[in-house]
Amino acid sequence: MRTTTGWRAAGPATLRRTDIQRRDLRPEDIAVRVDYCGVCHSDLHALRDHDRHALLVPGHEFTGVVTATGPEVTAFSVGDHVAVGNIVDSCGTCGMCRAGQENFCHSFPTLTYGGTDRQDGSITLGGFSREYVVRDAFAYPLPSGLDPAAAAPLLCAGVTVWEPLHSLGVGPGSRIAVAGLGGLGHLAVKMAVALGATTTVISRTKDKRDDARRLGARDLIDSTDTQQMAAARDTFDVVIDTISAPHDLAPYLKLVAMDGTLSLLGYLGQVTVEATDLLIGRKKLSSAGSGGRPATARMLQFCADNGIAADVEVLPSAQVDTALDRLRRNDVRYRFVLDMSDLD
Amino acid sequence: MRTTTGWRAAGPATLRRTDIQRRDLRPEDIAVRVDYCGVCHSDLHALRDHDRHALLVPGHEFTGVVTATGPEVTAFSVGDHVAVGNIVDSCGTCGMCRAGQENFCHSFPTLTYGGTDRQDGSITLGGFSREYVVRDAFAYPLPSGLDPAAAAPLLCAGVTVWEPLHSLGVGPGSRIAVAGLGGLGHLAVKMAVALGATTTVISRTKDKRDDARRLGARDLIDSTDTQQMAAARDTFDVVIDTISAPHDLAPYLKLVAMDGTLSLLGYLGQVTVEATDLLIGRKKLSSAGSGGRPATARMLQFCADNGIAADVEVLPSAQVDTALDRLRRNDVRYRFVLDMSDLD
Repeated sequence: MRTTTGWRAAGPATLRRTDIQRRDLRPEDIAVRVDYCGVCHSDLHALRDHDRHALLVPGHEFTGVVTATGPEVTAFSVGDHVAVGNIVDSCGTCGMCRAGQENFCHSFPTLTYGGTDRQDGSITLGGFSREYVVRDAFAYPLPSGLDPAAAAPLLCAGVTVWEPLHSLGVGPGSRIAVAGLGGLGHLAVKMAVALGATTTVISRTKDKRDDARRLGARDLIDSTDTQQMAAARDTFDVVIDTISAPHDLAPYLKLVAMDGTLSLLGYLGQVTVEATDLLIGRKKLSSAGSGGRPATARMLQFCADNGIAADVEVLPSAQVDTALDRLRRNDVRYRFVLDMSDLD
Repeated sequence: MRTTTGWRAAGPATLRRTDIQRRDLRPEDIAVRVDYCGVCHSDLHALRDHDRHALLVPGHEFTGVVTATGPEVTAFSVGDHVAVGNIVDSCGTCGMCRAGQENFCHSFPTLTYGGTDRQDGSITLGGFSREYVVRDAFAYPLPSGLDPAAAAPLLCAGVTVWEPLHSLGVGPGSRIAVAGLGGLGHLAVKMAVALGATTTVISRTKDKRDDARRLGARDLIDSTDTQQMAAARDTFDVVIDTISAPHDLAPYLKLVAMDGTLSLLGYLGQVTVEATDLLIGRKKLSSAGSGGRPATARMLQFCADNGIAADVEVLPSAQVDTALDRLRRNDVRYRFVLDMSDLD
């Protein structure tokens, strides 16, 4: 086994520095020195729900440098800059895997942390650590031109918003609304704008209007202003809903244009809608999360080509508790990234 | 005013023959001698919910012959065969009306019965009667070759299933499942087959397998057989759900293929889904109901061109209570149509 250092859960809001064991490299594995790891809302959920007796190391969007390769690895060499997202393996044989949608693997993809390794049954430990060992097929070359710190959140937040934008055919002429301007939302705005869409932010935080415009949005609609919301009825081909708390979907469905789609990305629990809110205008409710290997690679190249990365606040990894606490209070514009070099 | 005869609600399962007043013809009106009117599930709902003190005459899918025309009517002449569906007017100026989706009129379309007339505020009385007076724009020429009795259900059931099939681009190569084989379902099968789709019926009534095949379906999946349902996972581009009672949508979402759609047509109340059941496979939940003027006309022509009409059991209108009672027990294959000639 290989020994590295990382941050393990010691409570719902506290992590503790600890030694971590990584597996010895299998033939198709690479070892990655983790340089930057984003802090995702789902890390908060994992910490809240975790069993105190289990070893939990969060973190599933990171960038780093290859430090070792297994004998069958051909795609990477020591020194390459790479990125890893929230899945690290899948069955490879089901219809979804064969279609390049490993994120929907019928036998469930192996998650980057809290997942069960398909070979030895061990529980995976995440990227809040200095080293990660991963099968080469689930690491991506980091395109040149992308800042490694700002690119880390692309691997979860980025691909999650990319998937619906891409699969729904968003492009020039599309009218897109992004509800919620946080880690997911700000990347959705940047990508939609780069795809040529007319993009509007929906937020209850009016003082984000300047930010929305800086990100390329045409305007911000105050979701608490019923007049503004009514005026925008039926005007968006796609509404990307990145709001992470449970909320009434009806006001957002009303914004969707004829034959358009409300795509739920932020809150992934049970949702209730009136069928007639879908019926009137033949609207669609959809969702997406994470991405398959081809989409992840395409998204990274698209971001490099268009100069897109997350707006990040980089903190030394020792400040992970501060990052989690501020994220819980939505006090970040727009993504925390931990700098892992303090673990050396 | 004009006087005719019809069937008014006298209880949740009883109608009584009565005289009905129709308005004098406005310049754009036509008078229609109603020959055949289909019996729709929503008639049952209307009867169940109706206020005993109000005058309710159900019926919103009928065919007949023009007997008089207002001075500004140019599209119809006395003697023309026509069909009328479940909406008889709309604002004509909102975005939905201008897009030919009068069924989604922002100020709500005027329903064929139980609606409020846009000019005099009177409550509309439906097609369970010998005469109906309607604005010419909301009557459709009945294409030659369509049997007037079997065509009547096309005006509600038919266009309701046509809308999602058409808007979702169903055609050769599409894999379609129709859940529930009743008034809506059997027309969905016929249309999907005529559009070139490979079509499968999902039903808890195994003995409908022969019927399903006769209608052109490849097979019937027994919805109570978990093995059959599991084997069909992720295999349909569109699942047309015509089940009229509340039911769990999860088993039907599982049948939807990657990027496919579950279209709710039968039960139009509040529905609850797990967002992850949409997420995994990027599936969509949608709905549809009724249709705009262009779609209704297109659907009628498509049916005439392809020899499609409802499988009907025609009863004299005096047997309306029997029809409603049997419909409540799903004892019809697949639509009751009332013959109004006994009202003369």
